[in-house]
Amino acid sequence: MTRPFESPWGATKRDVHAAIGDALAAEEAAALATVIDVEGSGYRRPGAKMVVADDGELRGSVTAGCLEGSVTDLARKAIADGETRTETYDLTDDDDADAWGIGLGCNGVIGVLIEPIDESFGPVVEGLEKRRSQTVLTAVESSNLAVRVGDRTVVTDGEFTATGRSELPDSVVTDALDRTEPLPDNGAVCVTVETDDGAVRVFVDRIDPSPELLLFGGQEDINPVASLARQAGFRVRVATARGARTEPDRFPAADEVVSTNPTELPDLVTVPEQTYAVLMSHNLIDDRLALDALLETNILYIGLMGPRKRFRELREEIDIDGRDADRIATPVGLDLGGDEPTAIGFSIVAELLAVHNDRSGGRLSDREGPIHERLEP
Amino acid sequence: MTRPFESPWGATKRDVHAAIGDALAAEEAAALATVIDVEGSGYRRPGAKMVVADDGELRGSVTAGCLEGSVTDLARKAIADGETRTETYDLTDDDDADAWGIGLGCNGVIGVLIEPIDESFGPVVEGLEKRRSQTVLTAVESSNLAVRVGDRTVVTDGEFTATGRSELPDSVVTDALDRTEPLPDNGAVCVTVETDDGAVRVFVDRIDPSPELLLFGGQEDINPVASLARQAGFRVRVATARGARTEPDRFPAADEVVSTNPTELPDLVTVPEQTYAVLMSHNLIDDRLALDALLETNILYIGLMGPRKRFRELREEIDIDGRDADRIATPVGLDLGGDEPTAIGFSIVAELLAVHNDRSGGRLSDREGPIHERLEP
Repeated sequence: MTRPFESPWGATKRDVHAAIGDALAAEEAAALATVIDVEGSGYRRPGAKMVVADDGELRGSVTAGCLEGSVTDLARKAIADGETRTETYDLTDDDDADAWGIGLGCNGVIGVLIEPIDESFGPVVEGLEKRRSQTVLTAVESSNLAVRVGDRTVVTDGEFTATGRSELPDSVVTDALDRTEPLPDNGAVCVTVETDDGAVRVFVDRIDPSPELLLFGGQEDINPVASLARQAGFRVRVATARGARTEPDRFPAADEVVSTNPTELPDLVTVPEQTYAVLMSHNLIDDRLALDALLETNILYIGLMGPRKRFRELREEIDIDGRDADRIATPVGLDLGGDEPTAIGFSIVAELLAVHNDRSGGRLSDREGPIHERLEP
Repeated sequence: MTRPFESPWGATKRDVHAAIGDALAAEEAAALATVIDVEGSGYRRPGAKMVVADDGELRGSVTAGCLEGSVTDLARKAIADGETRTETYDLTDDDDADAWGIGLGCNGVIGVLIEPIDESFGPVVEGLEKRRSQTVLTAVESSNLAVRVGDRTVVTDGEFTATGRSELPDSVVTDALDRTEPLPDNGAVCVTVETDDGAVRVFVDRIDPSPELLLFGGQEDINPVASLARQAGFRVRVATARGARTEPDRFPAADEVVSTNPTELPDLVTVPEQTYAVLMSHNLIDDRLALDALLETNILYIGLMGPRKRFRELREEIDIDGRDADRIATPVGLDLGGDEPTAIGFSIVAELLAVHNDRSGGRLSDREGPIHERLEP
């Protein structure tokens, strides 16, 4: 499926995860660079990833483009020698014409983990296919001679999984988790664990499956929403009702198109806490049945296309009070104006991102405090 | 240039205007459908357009997909007989299984103007190329025997332009303008003008050139912003500084890539009231020079990439007070969370749309009143 104006910088977490899986499946030599630490301000946060193929092709990013050259060189070394390494880039002197040019505007120190994509990624890729959240713990610095940089344990639902690499000592894993949990979705942070034989700095990286968008409807206005949501990193399913056409080429941006009844929509909600729904069948009866059914699940968000008046009609017909009416977004979307299908798509997908990231959707310039909360172990 | 997951519903005003120009230039038979009136609620507002090619290919939309079949049939009739006509679709009985199916959820009456794309569109296409705003006045109903449906006058900067079709009487044009101005950008409304020989209903349609986004910077993180802005209907120019690479394939979504100095950015601002700038050079010196220079223009919006602290540093170095600091958006973007380049792109483009449409961002579900203000003549 073609992507718009393809650029490695357009890659989402989902694309990067897919690239890791593809490299493993094809047994192609590739490396992964991961931001593990940012002091001061950086363009990307800890956990940001970039896949580097043997031929230098990139997927994802670790900065705005300033360090990718240097990181790519180290990634190719990692492919060649199979070693895992870290590198620290100090960009704090950006008013001087230093080694990085004429000032990057990132007053930060950025730590990057660079490693070959090896069998240790197998459990993560498998877990993502099963849509399970996992925590990957990797040693990134060690004065304990028994622990080497790159040693790794993957934790899923409290269970430790061997990765093919040397594992971290269980006590280090337990201690690191104790001190960092609960990490937010896709949160990542470094923590130093003291052992009897020296300190181990562990990068704790929570990897979550991409959020799902369930679009209920069968008309053409599904398409801009589906396309933009895909680009924003959502897995997109279109559920059509009443025998609507389901040819995949009718909804080219959808990962999946299924024909269903509105009352059976809950069957499509496998991981409710990662699922967002938008009801846009333009059919009052179907939307009412769909809303009623989805409210019975633990789904986080049900967006309802249409004017406010429509929701008042629905509210009279189904018992909404006491069933978390605040999960219902109506009118759906952020207040961006415009009536074009694409503008409506931006409005909806921007709201999905804001809700997914627990933000308000207002202007950052009207808000106090830093853009990103810093995670502290 | 490929578009993502191509669908006629992804077409913006800019794409539709381009399709009109293309049909004229290629002398291909095509028709235009325009929403002229909406009573109650509709998916699209007056002024929404869809180009129908002779082979049935569509660009744009007039509803969410419910009426396009019927409108397309009428458009092909217009291509065949060269006649301009209107059609009214009454969707108010949507709880009955009426002729339109099982309820469209649009409790509205929608009027559509359907006409061949003929030489009367020439002045509009030319005006858009020159980036001028124009008002197109078209008779859509007439009991005055001297005025026929489709009669048209185009007004640019107060000047009446002949269109090749029969013109409207000057007094009708003047009266219609008096009663509808000032129309907002791209605003459209029907007004009935009484003449001595009967009433003429005139559709007054303001056509504005697409807004421009000037991206200052030369790094890869330009790409997701440029791609999403293009999809949102902006004309996108990338201005790189300090001899950065300007190969077009480096910024595939840009309409134009120019190399310049930050102090010369104002030369690129030809229509300031339609231009939005985002400074993302990641270079404090260049961004400061660019901000200082752009504040001297009447540009509406200057987004500044980077943390809040960075703006405080800039503020100390240049005299911002008294030069409309509220034109500066920093940190740039809506508060959507996420640190991926694509998420940042959504945050910026969502803010551009909100500012362009004079909206606040924030969730529609938190806001009172209708989504769209109704224009009343």
